Amino acid sequence: MKHHAKATAALVRKLGRDRVATSGDALFRASFDGSKLSFLPEAVIRPRKRDDISTALALANKHRVPVTVRGGGTSLTGSGSPVHGGWVLNLSKWNRIRIDADAGLAHAQAGALVADIQAAAETAGWVYPPDPASKKYCTIGGNIACNAGGMHGGRYGVTRDFILALRGHLPTGEYVEWGAATKKFSAGFNLRDLWIGAEGMLGVVTEAVLKLIPKPAERWTLLTAFPDEVAAFRAIRTLFAQRVQPAICEFLDRHSVQCAETKTGKTVFAGQPGKPVILIELAGSPNELADTKPAVLAWAAEHAQAFREAHDRDEAEELWTVRRKCSGAMFALGDSKLNEDIVVPLANYEKFAVFLDKLRKKSRLPIPTFGHLADGNLHVNIMYHRENRAEYLRAEKAVGELMKGVVALGGAISGEHGIGLAKTPFLRLQHTPAQIKAMRAIKDALDPNGILNPGKMFTLFKVWEHPRLNIELPWDHK
Amino acid sequence: MKHHAKATAALVRKLGRDRVATSGDALFRASFDGSKLSFLPEAVIRPRKRDDISTALALANKHRVPVTVRGGGTSLTGSGSPVHGGWVLNLSKWNRIRIDADAGLAHAQAGALVADIQAAAETAGWVYPPDPASKKYCTIGGNIACNAGGMHGGRYGVTRDFILALRGHLPTGEYVEWGAATKKFSAGFNLRDLWIGAEGMLGVVTEAVLKLIPKPAERWTLLTAFPDEVAAFRAIRTLFAQRVQPAICEFLDRHSVQCAETKTGKTVFAGQPGKPVILIELAGSPNELADTKPAVLAWAAEHAQAFREAHDRDEAEELWTVRRKCSGAMFALGDSKLNEDIVVPLANYEKFAVFLDKLRKKSRLPIPTFGHLADGNLHVNIMYHRENRAEYLRAEKAVGELMKGVVALGGAISGEHGIGLAKTPFLRLQHTPAQIKAMRAIKDALDPNGILNPGKMFTLFKVWEHPRLNIELPWDHK
Repeated sequence: MKHHAKATAALVRKLGRDRVATSGDALFRASFDGSKLSFLPEAVIRPRKRDDISTALALANKHRVPVTVRGGGTSLTGSGSPVHGGWVLNLSKWNRIRIDADAGLAHAQAGALVADIQAAAETAGWVYPPDPASKKYCTIGGNIACNAGGMHGGRYGVTRDFILALRGHLPTGEYVEWGAATKKFSAGFNLRDLWIGAEGMLGVVTEAVLKLIPKPAERWTLLTAFPDEVAAFRAIRTLFAQRVQPAICEFLDRHSVQCAETKTGKTVFAGQPGKPVILIELAGSPNELADTKPAVLAWAAEHAQAFREAHDRDEAEELWTVRRKCSGAMFALGDSKLNEDIVVPLANYEKFAVFLDKLRKKSRLPIPTFGHLADGNLHVNIMYHRENRAEYLRAEKAVGELMKGVVALGGAISGEHGIGLAKTPFLRLQHTPAQIKAMRAIKDALDPNGILNPGKMFTLFKVWEHPRLNIELPWDHK
Repeated sequence: MKHHAKATAALVRKLGRDRVATSGDALFRASFDGSKLSFLPEAVIRPRKRDDISTALALANKHRVPVTVRGGGTSLTGSGSPVHGGWVLNLSKWNRIRIDADAGLAHAQAGALVADIQAAAETAGWVYPPDPASKKYCTIGGNIACNAGGMHGGRYGVTRDFILALRGHLPTGEYVEWGAATKKFSAGFNLRDLWIGAEGMLGVVTEAVLKLIPKPAERWTLLTAFPDEVAAFRAIRTLFAQRVQPAICEFLDRHSVQCAETKTGKTVFAGQPGKPVILIELAGSPNELADTKPAVLAWAAEHAQAFREAHDRDEAEELWTVRRKCSGAMFALGDSKLNEDIVVPLANYEKFAVFLDKLRKKSRLPIPTFGHLADGNLHVNIMYHRENRAEYLRAEKAVGELMKGVVALGGAISGEHGIGLAKTPFLRLQHTPAQIKAMRAIKDALDPNGILNPGKMFTLFKVWEHPRLNIELPWDHK
C-alpha cells in the first residue's frame, strides 16, 4: 500500500485538524465495513462544507491519493473498506432531512439514516419504501451507492426508483447537480442513475431528493406453507399472474424454516415442521385490502398446505417471527456465512430450486435460502465453519457455481449489495468483455486519476485470502 | 456536410442492396423527424439481424460516418434528423412484442410501437403506462432515447421507470446487455439508465424488457374549473397534500381553454367561459375509487369554481374534449408553435403562473399552456406567425426567457422531449460547465469516433436559421 504522508500533511493544513482525523482509533474505525475486511487509511476527513470536499478531492487528484467515501459502513461486500488506503471521506454527519409534504418528497443529505428518513416521511403521512435490513444503521448515501433494495422492491421498487435528484462532486472535485425535484427530467445525459449503484466510484453524493409514496392505511399479513420449494414457486407464479402485487412477499426455504424452528423451539405450522413458507403482506386502504384479501385467501386455500392470517399487528408480529429469526438462526449450521443476494427471473424460479438442491448435494454444505419473491432477489446463505479448511474450500467453490447458475438462468449476481470486493471474482460472469470495457471507459473518463474507491468492482480480489476482523457489528444477524 | 461514398459502397457490398436503401425517396423520408428539419443521409440501413448492426457500426467507425438511429421519427426536437448526413439506421421493422403475463413484463424490440405494446399488455390484463401523444406512431426505442413521458407520469412514472433491461450495441459495434428481466439488479455500473434519455448518442437500443403494472378495473373522470391559474395551482397542491395520486391530472390554462372553446363553439362550463381547468382521472378497483372519489369531490366543492364528474365513459369522453382539442385549436393564434415541454417543481407552480403572465405581456404573443400537473411537466406553447419576422423574433426571445425562468425556479428545460437540435441553445442554462464536461467525457469514452447521432445536444444549433419542411405528419395536432 502506497503512503501519502506529504499529501496528508497538506490536507491537514488546508482543512484543519478538526476536520481531518489521523488518530489510530479513527483510522481503525474507518478501515472496514460490514464485510470486516480491514485496510487502514491515512486520514479520515469529516467535511463541514461543500468546499472541504472540493478541496480534498483536488488534493487527492494532485497527489493521487485514493479516496473512499463512507456513511454507516454497513456494506457487506467491502465496498466501504479503503482497500488501497489513502483517505476516507466520512459523510455520516451530513444527515439533514427535510420533508416536502405537499409534493411528497424528501430532501436528505447523504449521511441521513434510512430509518430516520422513513420516520420523517411517515410523520408527514408519506412512506419511503426501500428498507434494507440495516436501515437503522445505513445511510441514504450508502443505499444510493449500492442501489439498496429490501423487502418492498417487488411492488414499490428499489432505491433507484425513488431518487429524483442527486447533488455532489465529480471525482475531480467539481460540484454538480443531476436531475431536479420533479418527476420528469429529460435534459442531458443521465448521470444521476449512473451514480446510483456505482459504489462511490464515479462521484461523491452529498444530497438527494427522494420521491415518497402515500402511506397505506392498513397492512394485512398471511403466512403460507408448501410441501416443497418447487410447489411454493409454482404457487406464487399463479398469484402474480392474477396481478396481485403484495407489498411484501418473503420466501423461506425449508432449511431456513428449520433453522428458525430449531432456534425458537416451535414449529411454524403445528405438526408440519420444516416446510417452506411464503409470508405475504398486503398494504392499502381498507377498501383496497377488501379487494385483494379474498383473492389471496382463495389462492392460499387452493395452493398452500397450510396458512394462517393475522387479525391484528400482534398476530402479524407472530407470523413474522420465522422471517426475523431465520438469518441469525443459521449460525447453528456453521460459524460463517456467505450471504449472496442473487436475483433470478420469475420464469426460472423452479429451475433455480432444482439447481440449488444439486448445489447442496455437491457441496455437502447447508445452504438455507430466503428472499424477496416479488423481485426475484433471493438470499442464498452458504454456511461453513471457518476453521474447517475442507468446508471452506467447498463453500468457495459453491459460490462460484451459484453465480454461474444464476447468470445461466438470466439473473444477476447481486440484487442489492453490489460488487465491492467480495463479488469481483464473478463480475465477468455477469458482464461480457465489451460491457466491462464500456464501464471502465466511463470510470477513466470521469475519474482520470482513479482516486475514487479504487480496487473495487473491476480488480480481482480474493476474499478468502484476507482475514476478517473478529468483531460484532450492531447490524450483525446474530 | 462530408460525403462518404466509399464507405457507403462498402456498406452496400457487406450488407447487400436489400438492406441498404440509397434511393432519393428513401433518403428523403429518413432526412427529418417531427421537427421537420431535413438533412439528407447517404444511406438508410434496414438491418435484418444483430450482425448487420455490428457490421454497419464497425464500418462507420472505420470511415468516420455519422449514424443516426431511427424509429417512428416522431421526435419534436430534431434528435432523429441526421444533421451531419451519413447513415440512418432504421429499426422500425424490429417490432416484435412478447408479454410475460405471469411476471408482468413485456419483451419488445426497439421498433415496436408504444400503442402496440400497450394493446398487447392490456390483452393480458396488464398496463404499460407511459403514453406520449404520438403513441400510435412512436416506437419504444424512440421513447427510450428521449425518456418519453405522457399523462401518467405523476403517479406511475416515465419510460425510465418501466425499463428493466436493454439490449443493443455500443457505438463501436459490440453487442451488449444491461440489466435483466428482474426488478432488482445491482451488479456493475448502470449503463441501462445512462442509455435512457441519451438520445441515441451513447448506444443503439435493439430490445427492451419493460415492467408492466396491473390494469386498473375502473376509471373516474372529473373536470374542475378555477378563477385563474394561481388559484388552480394553489388548489392542486392541497389535493396532493392529502396524498391523493390521480392517474391523470391535466391542467389547461385559460388561453388553452379559450382556444378549445372557440374551436368547438362551446364553453366548457356554461356561463363561465375561458376559465383554467384541471382534469382529474382516478384509476383503480371499484373499492379503491370508493376511497378516493369522496375526497376528490369534497376538494372540488371547496376549491373549484365549477366541476362536473363523468358517470360513464361517454361522459368522460365529453369531459376530455377540451383537453383533446386545445393543442390543435391553438393554431388559430398563429400558424407556428414553439412547444416547450418544461418542468417546474410543485413548490413553484404559482410563481411560474406569475412569470408566464409577465412573459406574455413582454413578448406580446399568445402562450397557451397545458400539461401534467402531477409531475410538473407543462407544455408552454409560444404561438407566432411564420412570415411575421417581428413576431418570430419575439417568439425566439421568449423561449430563451422561458428557459431561464424555468431553471431559476428549479425546473428542467425538457421533461419528455429531450434536447435534440432544438434545445441545444439552452443546455448550458440547465447544466454547469462541469456537468457538461462530465457528459462529454462519457460521450468521448463510449463513442471515440463520435459517430452516433453527432451534432445533437452539445453543439449549438440555431433552429431559426433553418427552414422547416412544409408538410403534414400523421401525428401533427391540427
